[in-house]
Amino acid sequence: MRVAVDAMGGDYGPDEIVLGAFQAAQEYEQEGIEIVLVGDQAQIIQALDRHGKWKEGNITVQHASEVIDMHDSPGAAVRKKKDASVVVATGLVKQGHCDVVISAGSTGGAVAAALFGLGRIKGIERPAIATPIPNLTGTTVLLDSGANVDSKPKHLVQNAIMGSIYAEYVLNIPRPRVGLLNIGEEESKGNEQAFTTYPLLTQLNSVNFIGNVEGRDIPKGTVDVVVCDGFVGNIVLKFGEGLASAILQLLKQSIKSGNLWTKLAAMLIMPTLRGLKKKLDHAEYGGAPLLGVNGGFIICHGSSRAKDIKSAIRVAKEFTEQEVVAHIRETIAKEGIVTNE
Amino acid sequence: MRVAVDAMGGDYGPDEIVLGAFQAAQEYEQEGIEIVLVGDQAQIIQALDRHGKWKEGNITVQHASEVIDMHDSPGAAVRKKKDASVVVATGLVKQGHCDVVISAGSTGGAVAAALFGLGRIKGIERPAIATPIPNLTGTTVLLDSGANVDSKPKHLVQNAIMGSIYAEYVLNIPRPRVGLLNIGEEESKGNEQAFTTYPLLTQLNSVNFIGNVEGRDIPKGTVDVVVCDGFVGNIVLKFGEGLASAILQLLKQSIKSGNLWTKLAAMLIMPTLRGLKKKLDHAEYGGAPLLGVNGGFIICHGSSRAKDIKSAIRVAKEFTEQEVVAHIRETIAKEGIVTNE
Repeated sequence: MRVAVDAMGGDYGPDEIVLGAFQAAQEYEQEGIEIVLVGDQAQIIQALDRHGKWKEGNITVQHASEVIDMHDSPGAAVRKKKDASVVVATGLVKQGHCDVVISAGSTGGAVAAALFGLGRIKGIERPAIATPIPNLTGTTVLLDSGANVDSKPKHLVQNAIMGSIYAEYVLNIPRPRVGLLNIGEEESKGNEQAFTTYPLLTQLNSVNFIGNVEGRDIPKGTVDVVVCDGFVGNIVLKFGEGLASAILQLLKQSIKSGNLWTKLAAMLIMPTLRGLKKKLDHAEYGGAPLLGVNGGFIICHGSSRAKDIKSAIRVAKEFTEQEVVAHIRETIAKEGIVTNE
Repeated sequence: MRVAVDAMGGDYGPDEIVLGAFQAAQEYEQEGIEIVLVGDQAQIIQALDRHGKWKEGNITVQHASEVIDMHDSPGAAVRKKKDASVVVATGLVKQGHCDVVISAGSTGGAVAAALFGLGRIKGIERPAIATPIPNLTGTTVLLDSGANVDSKPKHLVQNAIMGSIYAEYVLNIPRPRVGLLNIGEEESKGNEQAFTTYPLLTQLNSVNFIGNVEGRDIPKGTVDVVVCDGFVGNIVLKFGEGLASAILQLLKQSIKSGNLWTKLAAMLIMPTLRGLKKKLDHAEYGGAPLLGVNGGFIICHGSSRAKDIKSAIRVAKEFTEQEVVAHIRETIAKEGIVTNE
C-alpha cells in the first residue's frame, strides 16, 4: 500500500511531517506500507538525512514546487497552482500510483484538491470531514466538521450514511448509533435544517438512527456518529479543543500556586494528568478522513507534529484496507441515492 | 426591589428553589431584596417551614395552580395555562408589583411567558438568552444560547448590542470585545448568515466589534461577548457542560484506579479539583438573562439547586440595579434600529 504524504502543509511542515512519515515508514514496513513524500525535494531530503538511513527503505520523494497556504482561495489555488504539493499528492492517487493522501495543509485547499482531483462518489453531493472525538467510553465521530456550510437536509442524510460506514469499518463499532445534532431530543425541536432532516434519516435502511442528540451526548458517549452542518461541527470541535486545554491549564496553574504538599501531590499525579491529556489529544486519533470522494484522503490538524502524522498514516492504512470508499459507493447505491449535482 | 421566583420550575422544584430563595432572602435582606415565591401555596409553605422562621421576613407567597412542563408546547401552554407559575410570576413584573422574574422551568415556556407577558423592547425582534461562560481570565457571554433558531443577520446585530450592554453593566467589562462566532477569522469565512452579518456589525457605533472569533476563543478568553444563532449557541453550551464534567470524571476515575501514592496525591489535590469544578460550574454564574423583553427575566438551568437560585437572585439584583433594560432601549434607539415585526 502506498501513502502520499503532503510534506509541505501544516504549521510544522516539512520537518515534523517528514519525521512522522519516517517513523511510520520504519514501523509499518513489515506491513507493506510505502511512503511517498510530496513537496520541495531539497527540503524533504535534508529533513530525511537528519533522521538517518532512509534511501534503501520504503520512502520515496516526489518533487512539487508549490504550496497552497492559508491565504490562498482554495478553489482558485487548486486550479492555478498545478504543482502544489497537495495537488500533486492527490494526483498520485488519481493515477493509481498511491492509495491514499495525507495532508496537514489548509483544510480548504485539501478539500478542493480532493474534489478536483478525485471527484465525488456517485450519489454524494458534498464530501464531509469525519472527526473522531474521544468520549467517556470510546470515540464519537462528528461529521461534517468543516468541509461544508449551509448544508441541505439531503447532505446531512449522506453524512449519516458515510459516518456510519466509517464508524463500523474503521472504528470497529458494530451497528453504530447515529444521532442528529440538535437542541432537544424531541422530533419537533431545532432549526429548519434539522427539522427537515429528521424524517429523512428515519427512512434509511443502512443507518441505525437513534434520533436527535444534544451537545452533551458527544462527551458522554451515548452516540457513535453525530451528524451536523460543517458550520456547527467546526465550531463545536474548536470549542472542545480550547476548553480541554483551558481546563488542563487551570489545573496545572492551581497546582503550581499551591503549597509544598500540593506540589508533591502534583508530582505524584502527573502521570495521570499526562494520560488524560493523551486521551484528549487529537494526535492519538490521527487524521480525519474526507468522506465522499473517490479515493482515500486523510486531513490532519494544522498543528500536527510527527506523532500526529504517524497516527494519520495508521488511520490511512485502516481506511484503505477496510475499503471504506467501496462500502460508501455500494451503500449509497443500495439506499437509492443517485443524485449528483 | 422585589424578585418574583417561579418556585415550581426545574428538576428540583419546589424544594431547592424555595431553599435558595430563602437563603437569598436572609442574606440580601439588608440590601432591600424582597422575594415573592410563585406556585402551589401549600407546597411552598411546607418547604419554607422546613427551613425555619420566614413569616416575619422578606418572603411572601403568591399562589399559582398550574405548571408549564417540558412536554407542553410553550406558546400554547402560556395562552392556555393562565395560572401557571411562570405566567403569574411574569404578570407580577408586568403589573409593576415585582422588578424581575427568575425561572428554572422549561426554557421555551419561560421565553414564551416573557414575550407574551412583557413584550419586546422597541427595535428588538427576537429576545436572546445571554449565558455567561467561565474562561481562562474571566467570563465570556454567549448569546443567543437557545431562545431562537434560524436567526436573520439583523437579529444577530441586535444580540451584539444587547450582549455588549450586559457585559458592560452587569459583568463590569469596560468596552467589551464583541465577536461573531464563525469557522475562521477572515471576513469571507462562514455560512450565509455569518457572512451577511459581519458587515452589519462593523457599522454599529455602540459595539466594539473585533471581527470573527472561533470556538476556541471562548475558553481562551480573547473575546467578551460572542454572538451566534441560538441553535449553535445551545449546542456549544451543552457540549461544554458535557465535556467539562467528562474531563473531571476521567480525572477522578484515573486517580481512584491508581496506587497508594496516587490516592494520597488525590487526597492532597482534591481542594484544587473542587476549586476547578466551582469555576466550571454554572451555579457560580447564576442565571442567564433573557435580553430584549420589557422587564427583567432571568432563566436558570433546569438542574438548578438552591445555590444556583441564590446566585440567580444576585444576578437579578445586578440586572435591575444596573437598569439593563433601559440601557438596551436607549442604545437600540440611538443606533437607529426601530423595526418591530
